[in-house]
Amino acid sequence: MLASIVKRTRILPGELAIIHDIRRRAASARTSSLIAGIGDDCAIIRPKAGYEICVTTDFSLEGRHFHRDLHPPESAGHRCLARGLSDLAAMGAEPLAVFLSLALPARLPAAWLDRFFDGFLSLAARHRVPLAGGDTAESPGLICADIVAIGQLPRGHARLRSAARPGDLLYVTGCLGGSAAELLALSRHPKKFRGLAKAAPGHPHLYPEPRLAQGRRLRSLAHAMIDISDGLSTDLTHLCEESGLAATLEEAALPINPLALSAASRKEALALALNGGEDYELLFTASPRAKIGRSFLGVPIHRIGVLRKRTRKQPLILLNTPDGRRIPVIAAGWQHFHSGS
Amino acid sequence: MLASIVKRTRILPGELAIIHDIRRRAASARTSSLIAGIGDDCAIIRPKAGYEICVTTDFSLEGRHFHRDLHPPESAGHRCLARGLSDLAAMGAEPLAVFLSLALPARLPAAWLDRFFDGFLSLAARHRVPLAGGDTAESPGLICADIVAIGQLPRGHARLRSAARPGDLLYVTGCLGGSAAELLALSRHPKKFRGLAKAAPGHPHLYPEPRLAQGRRLRSLAHAMIDISDGLSTDLTHLCEESGLAATLEEAALPINPLALSAASRKEALALALNGGEDYELLFTASPRAKIGRSFLGVPIHRIGVLRKRTRKQPLILLNTPDGRRIPVIAAGWQHFHSGS
Repeated sequence: MLASIVKRTRILPGELAIIHDIRRRAASARTSSLIAGIGDDCAIIRPKAGYEICVTTDFSLEGRHFHRDLHPPESAGHRCLARGLSDLAAMGAEPLAVFLSLALPARLPAAWLDRFFDGFLSLAARHRVPLAGGDTAESPGLICADIVAIGQLPRGHARLRSAARPGDLLYVTGCLGGSAAELLALSRHPKKFRGLAKAAPGHPHLYPEPRLAQGRRLRSLAHAMIDISDGLSTDLTHLCEESGLAATLEEAALPINPLALSAASRKEALALALNGGEDYELLFTASPRAKIGRSFLGVPIHRIGVLRKRTRKQPLILLNTPDGRRIPVIAAGWQHFHSGS
Repeated sequence: MLASIVKRTRILPGELAIIHDIRRRAASARTSSLIAGIGDDCAIIRPKAGYEICVTTDFSLEGRHFHRDLHPPESAGHRCLARGLSDLAAMGAEPLAVFLSLALPARLPAAWLDRFFDGFLSLAARHRVPLAGGDTAESPGLICADIVAIGQLPRGHARLRSAARPGDLLYVTGCLGGSAAELLALSRHPKKFRGLAKAAPGHPHLYPEPRLAQGRRLRSLAHAMIDISDGLSTDLTHLCEESGLAATLEEAALPINPLALSAASRKEALALALNGGEDYELLFTASPRAKIGRSFLGVPIHRIGVLRKRTRKQPLILLNTPDGRRIPVIAAGWQHFHSGS
């Protein structure tokens, strides 16, 4: 029995190699806000004076958020980090540091992990956010990654879901349904996944782009803001519920991703745009008097609807169709216990 | 194929119940530093002016850190949180908020989760730390919990592993080897686990007590500090390596937990004290001129050795035995990629 405990507490050579590798690869990313990163009981972060801290955590689980036999490891790493950064973007925050906890099966090939970090760290470098720590453990099952993203913003300037006002116009960055459509197209031709080991525009599922710069710009323009990682229908429901309002969407105004239009019928493409999820775009509301351009820093902005007072008679979300009908939209995207929805 | 995507993005009723339950149970724990908790893309935390932020993350994995057929769920929840709080204690930090990400198998009984939260939230309440968010997902395998603990301390006052000085005396809070010894004793009589569903002193494995108050007090007394979650031999090695020093321990001075002495031979008990790990006590160094009492806030403090300059000829850690021998001690505890060792 003692032997089993001693064995339990012994260092696993594979684990040690991972620690050293992560340390080496993360060491270069020190910033002026990160006082101490990997190498102590905690990392130490120094936010700017007068700033608040934003914190979000998101799982990326093998078999649920990615498939080892389909997704290139670079995509799994990229998407893992993008999930966290997109939440910071939705508050209008600047990233300070990220933490990655990884539970890995004992027999995971070293090359998989190496390529996972290629994807993760190349997105991190692009947004100048250091990997400041985390945890590793041997997983008795599948790969389990948990990303923690820490950001900062001026005190009281967070764009909350609850801050929408009646009459606000509703906007979205980028396109809708692209992630689900790309997954759908790739699932039909799984071999195509393999050739897509490098982040590039036009791959909303494999390499979504967190809208950090747009989120910061919107800090002074938007009332309420949320990212639509869970799908427009679900995240708009969150926004309406938190703000105590209802919404009307214009179907003709929805910027449906061309990938969705080519992968599915018009009706299915609309379903992907409303419910597909994982688009990592920003949904925000602003006063009709606010000057919202047609694009922010190269990303198109579309006005897709309006917020109205909530009544008992009307559904929370209505969709005006091009042929003049009004259809209720129910939350049919992804829902989870988030930092914190 | 579209059906599988729509299925993938559908809300799981069990997951939704968990979300609501966690929200309800966590809602009461708002503090003046936690501006927004569960309910938005991120939680918002306002540290005191002139303070820095500490961040740590730790996995608690079924089959690795706890066993569902042995550990009461309350103990799994308590230990999950204790891991994070102990890291804050080791920096001298005050906790601000914790985040919990949980991947749960679909068929996990609701009662297990409920009791897990009983253990988790009762420790949280005792230390007045709010659960501010996290993530949930359906695990395709075993239970996977990741705790994120955020603390604050006055700028520049973190007690780092690297701050020990030659001639410093080496101290430890509480006792050593108790956690491994209790696990050993319980493993011999697995049925005893069941009756231990409530946190109580004297259960260093099932209900370890993070030394937050002691850590804060030591901010002004200690030079270097680390928690010995990974075992004295491993964590003292970390401290020596980070400080560029070596250490000599006095075997006769080691406060071996009575549980270890009764569960094993003297030689095995010493091995448990040095290598057992998960004791969640604080190991710290202080100047010989510092006035370190025999106890801090009810927890005994023992002087167990001294730090010395590193030489090529001598091992990093030496143990002086009661019969006058000097034995080299190697790091034989637990090692992982931490926030960040």
